[in-house]
Amino acid sequence: MRQRFPAHHYINGILTGDRLVLSQAITLVESRLVDDQALAQQVLEAILPKTGNSIRIGITGVPGVGKSTFIEAFGSYLTKLGHWLAVLTVDPTSQRSGGSLLGDKTRMESLSMNPSAYIRPSPAGDSLGGVAHRTRETILLCEAAGFDTILVETVGVGQSETVVHGMVDFFLLLMLAGAGDELQGMKRGIMELADALVITKADGDNRAAANRARVDYQNALHLFPPTGTGWFPPVLTCSALPDHSASPSGITNVWQMIEQHQQLTTQNGVRNRRRQEQQLTWFRSLLRQRLEGQFYNQPGIKQQLDRLENQVLAGTLLPAPAVDIVLKQSLDSH
Amino acid sequence: MRQRFPAHHYINGILTGDRLVLSQAITLVESRLVDDQALAQQVLEAILPKTGNSIRIGITGVPGVGKSTFIEAFGSYLTKLGHWLAVLTVDPTSQRSGGSLLGDKTRMESLSMNPSAYIRPSPAGDSLGGVAHRTRETILLCEAAGFDTILVETVGVGQSETVVHGMVDFFLLLMLAGAGDELQGMKRGIMELADALVITKADGDNRAAANRARVDYQNALHLFPPTGTGWFPPVLTCSALPDHSASPSGITNVWQMIEQHQQLTTQNGVRNRRRQEQQLTWFRSLLRQRLEGQFYNQPGIKQQLDRLENQVLAGTLLPAPAVDIVLKQSLDSH
Repeated sequence: MRQRFPAHHYINGILTGDRLVLSQAITLVESRLVDDQALAQQVLEAILPKTGNSIRIGITGVPGVGKSTFIEAFGSYLTKLGHWLAVLTVDPTSQRSGGSLLGDKTRMESLSMNPSAYIRPSPAGDSLGGVAHRTRETILLCEAAGFDTILVETVGVGQSETVVHGMVDFFLLLMLAGAGDELQGMKRGIMELADALVITKADGDNRAAANRARVDYQNALHLFPPTGTGWFPPVLTCSALPDHSASPSGITNVWQMIEQHQQLTTQNGVRNRRRQEQQLTWFRSLLRQRLEGQFYNQPGIKQQLDRLENQVLAGTLLPAPAVDIVLKQSLDSH
Repeated sequence: MRQRFPAHHYINGILTGDRLVLSQAITLVESRLVDDQALAQQVLEAILPKTGNSIRIGITGVPGVGKSTFIEAFGSYLTKLGHWLAVLTVDPTSQRSGGSLLGDKTRMESLSMNPSAYIRPSPAGDSLGGVAHRTRETILLCEAAGFDTILVETVGVGQSETVVHGMVDFFLLLMLAGAGDELQGMKRGIMELADALVITKADGDNRAAANRARVDYQNALHLFPPTGTGWFPPVLTCSALPDHSASPSGITNVWQMIEQHQQLTTQNGVRNRRRQEQQLTWFRSLLRQRLEGQFYNQPGIKQQLDRLENQVLAGTLLPAPAVDIVLKQSLDSH
């Protein structure tokens, strides 16, 4: 049984940058127990004035694109520049957990031993809404603990990209050269969310293909509707191999590009507006989740929905009367 | 005051292809009166077995792309082939109306006089959910009335594209040659929804530019994640001018392409699966709308939400406690 501390333990620990306490606080925030949630809100409200001062970067890409390798190389580079880095990863090996996991620490071996970096894996098996809910709050905790750069990793296959896009300042899409089979896992629509594309594994024999892919994608992005922010998503190549000989500046370029974006969007007010809109979207989706939660937690409702959805799927019942049936029973049972 | 007829009046009229009755039935379906809604459901359930036999085509594009001109030319072509065509348009000039409007009949002058075509404008000013709700049901009414081809027009600037994409078999995006300013109005993400792109106004001086755009977009689409349906969205050019000399087969090609898609997706089961999923999505979004409707219609809730959203926007209140406040008040008021 995990110990629950008084609020000031978490608050003081976080504000002094104590990582053990930070980890405890994230576990608290991730908890689904009602008492934990109340305590978590107390902690979050107290640290709120110390949040918001980081660059929040989302990183996505299909499995095999080399996300961990990229984050290792990128993260090491950032800490050498003097940054304090928090990496929030989704651990694909875990269904659910209250604490940190070994999986990702092994995946990013050197970064996990780096004193300027903090890696926090979240279980992947949780509901999308749940994970997103906690990730937003985890970002705030990390900021209050003094981390100035937050990387949020997500696997480029599902809806979670849209959610992560809705909580970061910059959304980076890692791609492999040679579209085709490798892309089978990527969801349509993700490409248009990206603030930049980075073609990974631009080393050795793959270098020429990566450069061709860069040009192709850059041309393709020019045809996309503009972002409305004054920013035109660039395409870069990069090699994260420690022993790569080709394009050694790949990682540097990625960071310089993100800094340019940060500068531009700070100056033109887009960053602030994006964050404000994200807050509002977060509020509205939380409200929707809670409302639906109240509804779906009614006894017997799931069985009834299954029955009705099967009829709707089969085309024997129209959606509107099906909704009437559900809502009527829901009212009657009160 | 509009007259309300007994259900069999609508049902018989629709099934015998009486357009006056069809129009009355659509008006009934669009009505927000509770009694009308009940009657509408009765009619819809009765005609349900006669629905589903059309090709449902969504057509979108930013204002100025030439949607009405395209639909006129495409529609005339289809009726010459012997098709019965229903065109459901969104009338941008109208905020709300119970019946048909002159605006669109003028916009598509020759088609509106074509005995094989039926044009039904819907008011654009309505809530997105409302319009979509009625459009789905209007499609069913038109199918029962014997129309085998349904065009659903939408303006390519907002969320309505996603909704229309969720109710058609084929989603066609009209584009202008020369990306840039013309695209300012288009929402990001729409391009990846398209089953095909058609570059309009490929005539006269614009012909070369249209062909270049076709190649560019085709290359760009190759880089997109696959649709997972065995279909690779093609890019075509087309001129809808009655006196055009260039690429006179543009319209023919568009229709042949849609027929190929229909054939492919009928054979591989994708069309059926897509329609089944659309039914389920429709049910779920209706349920969500109704649940949220019940909530937002509570007295005083809007004012309170405004107040809380302002605090959330300003960053002085976190979303989770804001949701707690709303839900607590909502429960207390019961």
